Amino acid sequence: MPIIRIELLPGRTVEQKREVAEVFTAEICRIARCTPEDVNVVFTDIDKSDWAFAGKLMSDS
Amino acid sequence: MPIIRIELLPGRTVEQKREVAEVFTAEICRIARCTPEDVNVVFTDIDKSDWAFAGKLMSDS
Amino acid sequence: MPIIRIELLPGRTVEQKREVAEVFTAEICRIARCTPEDVNVVFTDIDKSDWAFAGKLMSDS
Amino acid sequence: MPIIRIELLPGRTVEQKREVAEVFTAEICRIARCTPEDVNVVFTDIDKSDWAFAGKLMSDS
Amino acid sequence: MPIIRIELLPGRTVEQKREVAEVFTAEICRIARCTPEDVNVVFTDIDKSDWAFAGKLMSDS
Amino acid sequence: MPIIRIELLPGRTVEQKREVAEVFTAEICRIARCTPEDVNVVFTDIDKSDWAFAGKLMSDS
Repeated sequence: MPIIRIELLPGRTVEQKREVAEVFTAEICRIARCTPEDVNVVFTDIDKSDWAFAGKLMSDS
Repeated sequence: MPIIRIELLPGRTVEQKREVAEVFTAEICRIARCTPEDVNVVFTDIDKSDWAFAGKLMSDS
Repeated sequence: MPIIRIELLPGRTVEQKREVAEVFTAEICRIARCTPEDVNVVFTDIDKSDWAFAGKLMSDS
Repeated sequence: MPIIRIELLPGRTVEQKREVAEVFTAEICRIARCTPEDVNVVFTDIDKSDWAFAGKLMSDS
Repeated sequence: MPIIRIELLPGRTVEQKREVAEVFTAEICRIARCTPEDVNVVFTDIDKSDWAFAGKLMSDS
Repeated sequence: MPIIRIELLPGRTVEQKREVAEVFTAEICRIARCTPEDVNVVFTDIDKSDWAFAGKLMSDS
């Protein structure tokens, strides 16, 4: 019953998310032996002004 | 000190969220013996293009 | 397709979690109009030494 | 490799988030002995109509 | 800078998690154009008595 | 009403977590203008075999 969450910067298209969801679902089913109906994938876009790396907001880099 | 998070598709009204928050808080206090002042409930709407089930974005189904 | 997560201090029994899962699932389906097969509930126990309120670990209060 | 997530009500400025990210990164590196390049900080604004405390939406208080 | 989280039932081996981490990192870099050094993957095992589907703890099914 | 979550590798002592909780609570109250009674801090230890960076489990590095 895997739940997969992906946080990423904005700018990915629906096409890219669609492919990530397809591939991740297929791969986790293959590797961890589950069925696609067990898998949820949730994307969350995080703005550059809401994400800091090494102490700096990405919007400042 | 329960923290309850609820991820759901958009489209629920404030009235529905208000009732969910009331009922969930009352019920967890009754069942798990806590006081309402210990309970936080956080809702997150997830767009259909950000949620995939069985490998397919919900916006594609 | 709600996903409900509940973080709480340890000490709740399986019976209590079972009842919370039943009641929360029934209530969210009633209020937000979904079917039980759409609902996941995930519990996470948080140790008192891993939870701070007002700046103090609960294991210190 | 700490990942720090901060959920808060809207209304904090970029300046405030910038300072929180700087201070939290510096302090966790000092206390837990890591390097800034190991630290991610992610902010999530939660609307008052999506956050309930003591069973009441904050937008109703 | 994607952060990928995977919640699953216990019982997956380190070998399976290793392969999931490798494949997910490679695929998200390919599809979303990032570099492996940008990707964190975090697994969380959820006990069957902490996960309910359709209102029932998985340990009861 | 900030909720702060911190995921880190195991090995930090209770003393280190206590200090992180104190400092983070004080600093966010100072910067974001809230009161300590509004702040929850939750720590989650992530095993090295459950955390991958750049496609590799940390237990393999």
